[in-house]
Amino acid sequence: MSAPDAASNPRTRLRRHPERGGHDREVVCDILDQGLVAHVAFAGPEGPFVLPMAYVRVGDELVLHGSRSSRLLQQLAAGAPVCLTVTLLDGLVIARSAFRCSMNYRSAMVFGNARLVDSTQEKRELLDVFVRRLTLGVTPRGASDEELAATTVVALDISEASAKVRSGGPRDLPADIESQTWAGEVPLRLVRLPPQAQPDVAAGAVPPRIDDGVA
Amino acid sequence: MSAPDAASNPRTRLRRHPERGGHDREVVCDILDQGLVAHVAFAGPEGPFVLPMAYVRVGDELVLHGSRSSRLLQQLAAGAPVCLTVTLLDGLVIARSAFRCSMNYRSAMVFGNARLVDSTQEKRELLDVFVRRLTLGVTPRGASDEELAATTVVALDISEASAKVRSGGPRDLPADIESQTWAGEVPLRLVRLPPQAQPDVAAGAVPPRIDDGVA
Repeated sequence: MSAPDAASNPRTRLRRHPERGGHDREVVCDILDQGLVAHVAFAGPEGPFVLPMAYVRVGDELVLHGSRSSRLLQQLAAGAPVCLTVTLLDGLVIARSAFRCSMNYRSAMVFGNARLVDSTQEKRELLDVFVRRLTLGVTPRGASDEELAATTVVALDISEASAKVRSGGPRDLPADIESQTWAGEVPLRLVRLPPQAQPDVAAGAVPPRIDDGVA
Repeated sequence: MSAPDAASNPRTRLRRHPERGGHDREVVCDILDQGLVAHVAFAGPEGPFVLPMAYVRVGDELVLHGSRSSRLLQQLAAGAPVCLTVTLLDGLVIARSAFRCSMNYRSAMVFGNARLVDSTQEKRELLDVFVRRLTLGVTPRGASDEELAATTVVALDISEASAKVRSGGPRDLPADIESQTWAGEVPLRLVRLPPQAQPDVAAGAVPPRIDDGVA
């Protein structure tokens, strides 16, 4: 965490509710490390596209991967400008007035141009980190050379990023607080449910950990 | 649900894993009705942008709103081409091989150009539906004329849309099934936790319902 904070520039400048946002690297990384799915936008030939993608942060980069034949991966590998957003939804904010109802969330937005990871060794290392993140302590067989060749891996620097966070209850107008309606927050959490093994799992195989509190 | 299915065209054609996708209107609506946050992409002057937004489906349209001074709302109201994606994350799929690990999810992607809702009555009606969706049975005061004027409401037709769904356990290679590692699914759910009232809520005010199973 020794790198400077993600820089503010015309793309990352926070226009709405700047009090909710910032460019603090630690806040950005925290959000990125808790999310599982990013929404990745790029300019397609027929207009903007946004697709959900799994990702993992490795140091100063976000690692994305997919089939070599995926159009999105081809665009990313070619260095097309991209915007990647991760949003963690934390709660519903119910106010005394419709206008003040809101949601609590944390979101991180990263801009840049991905680089193609073409060294076989680096691909393996980055995919290993990705798989460890998803498998919760289970260690599947690593990719074969053929599987690795069928996979495109790209990395997106997170130096141009911003975060936006809303937390806490509603900010009601004093005149509304007199009302008899309920106001507060309904927290939302993404939780893991008990693992469901495939029917052919060997007796004694160790199931994934689901109790470490990070969904 | 009498409208025809969302049309397939160059934008909505499913390129990767077409077996996971479709243009069935009912599937698209189901995903849109269960989600709370959409990721909305548009072409900014410095490249693609994608932002999280609350939304609600009303008939054949998705309703979005925000401050009159929001750059995104101004773009949407001006009819800029937009891509809106809603993703519901259903589980982690742990396979015997890294290559076959995956996630279960349902996502809906909508393309189009939003229309500005400028009739005061229609704005009120659409915001009412939106607020009812979020407040879980609590009825806050409706917007004042001033609050309504400060809010931009837009509606995006969902006729150009596609859905993509992955469910179930891993598809392991036969040769990998012999291995002693665990394989299966870890389901993920977005759940509501008990409501947290503001300290100044009147005794007897009715808290929101959190038990209807839709997070």
